[in-house]
Amino acid sequence: MAKKDTGSRVRDALRIDGELPDPGSTPVGPGKKPKALAKLGDAGERLSGLQEALYAEGVGGGTRSVLLVLQGMDTSGKGGTVSHVLGLVNPMGVRYAGFKAPTAAERRHHYLWRIRKQLPGAGRIGVFDRSHYEDILVPRVTGLLTAAERRRRYTEINAFERELADAGTTVVKVFLHISPEEQLKRLKARLVTPEKHWKYNPGDLEARSQWPAYQQAYADIFKKTSTGNAPWYAVPADHKWYRNWAVAELLIETLADLDPRFPEPGFDVDAELAKLKGVGVSS
Amino acid sequence: MAKKDTGSRVRDALRIDGELPDPGSTPVGPGKKPKALAKLGDAGERLSGLQEALYAEGVGGGTRSVLLVLQGMDTSGKGGTVSHVLGLVNPMGVRYAGFKAPTAAERRHHYLWRIRKQLPGAGRIGVFDRSHYEDILVPRVTGLLTAAERRRRYTEINAFERELADAGTTVVKVFLHISPEEQLKRLKARLVTPEKHWKYNPGDLEARSQWPAYQQAYADIFKKTSTGNAPWYAVPADHKWYRNWAVAELLIETLADLDPRFPEPGFDVDAELAKLKGVGVSS
Repeated sequence: MAKKDTGSRVRDALRIDGELPDPGSTPVGPGKKPKALAKLGDAGERLSGLQEALYAEGVGGGTRSVLLVLQGMDTSGKGGTVSHVLGLVNPMGVRYAGFKAPTAAERRHHYLWRIRKQLPGAGRIGVFDRSHYEDILVPRVTGLLTAAERRRRYTEINAFERELADAGTTVVKVFLHISPEEQLKRLKARLVTPEKHWKYNPGDLEARSQWPAYQQAYADIFKKTSTGNAPWYAVPADHKWYRNWAVAELLIETLADLDPRFPEPGFDVDAELAKLKGVGVSS
Repeated sequence: MAKKDTGSRVRDALRIDGELPDPGSTPVGPGKKPKALAKLGDAGERLSGLQEALYAEGVGGGTRSVLLVLQGMDTSGKGGTVSHVLGLVNPMGVRYAGFKAPTAAERRHHYLWRIRKQLPGAGRIGVFDRSHYEDILVPRVTGLLTAAERRRRYTEINAFERELADAGTTVVKVFLHISPEEQLKRLKARLVTPEKHWKYNPGDLEARSQWPAYQQAYADIFKKTSTGNAPWYAVPADHKWYRNWAVAELLIETLADLDPRFPEPGFDVDAELAKLKGVGVSS
């Protein structure tokens, strides 16, 4: 059920406005792991309830949806967030899409082409694990994007996200903010643990070596694409337990604001109850 | 991790071969709710481990996937199965698709057109909440399908499912088998509980009134489309706890048989570890 008093405490604290918080910090949230884990359990129930109402609203003809966009350096925990936060709700209501480097076929279309195909339907929570923002980040850092083309993409992306808002999709953009020291630990863990090898990509080191350039590109993105419709949030992500708590709360506040409602029945309940008694089953 | 000793005990017991089991029975499984719930908790860990390995295999270039097809009368628990069983694993690896009555646009294509668009990608577990089998069931019961057309659809569906097997998709077809008495209770519950109204559809009574015709149509489907590649299983579904346990076990046995493996790294681990130390981050 929607909790009307959820407010916007976490959103207000994490909305990006200039400097990013320290990746190891725990603003507004529980500062210790046991408390964060307990709160994530509670969050699961609230999130499930809100998600069910949004889904029901969609079945009843509503068109609203939510789109969580996850961005961050390699190992920042995009996959872990999907598993631990979206894993709290009914899979019927979740639509996951991961975006890797575009394929040859995808590159023959506008960069938003493959993005549009993965938008969540009515009543759904969509999750983008990387997104259209990669189409500014990567070519910018690797020097393949002219300043003019970059400006055009900012304009296109802001227009695209306004279109989403107009269509009833609330976009929640989250930057999972880790420190280079934490990334080093996580990359090492991927290399020394055979069952984690599949998560490692030699290209990750290339991106790591360009860390300052990526941070600069992100700073520019936050400045140019934080809009009233679709603000950016920075979630300090060196502590996985804090990251999970924070993303869950951002979703809960967003959904509570939407205040999704179970739809009014499109039938006469008493009449159906009466009919139900009459429909025997001869077998 | 794959558990090699899972075997096929549950699959053997629930594979349809003539008569269906009693909807209130609990063959091969725990006969009491507390034990079934405890076992479902264990199943969650095994299923998650297998699913992660299948996903990793897909990232490493593997093409295998699993497709769970859920069929059953209204209120038989297709949605509940998705929530309680697929909800046990990482949403990144699950692709859900619900099929309602085809839209006008969908009807302008072959009935398999919309089905093909929802097939799971490599490494994924796809879930169909209703499926191409509705395209035999409904028109048959409502008298819109000639015997010749029905035969053609059986042939087409068997060819389609063989194609899936050839492409690396293991199809697990589950009939959630409830009794008309249990359906009566569940329909009533949907009518007397306002937050469940959205799950109720006046058309459900129409289908209920044709119960014997649907059972007959299902019996025919089981006979004509239970193949070596894609057998049908009947899960007694009057007890939700048994249903969840049974579907989880069917998936676990299927995945354990596939024995998915974390891929060999496509890089030299020691060389990457050495490089990692050298990649400093000046910020």
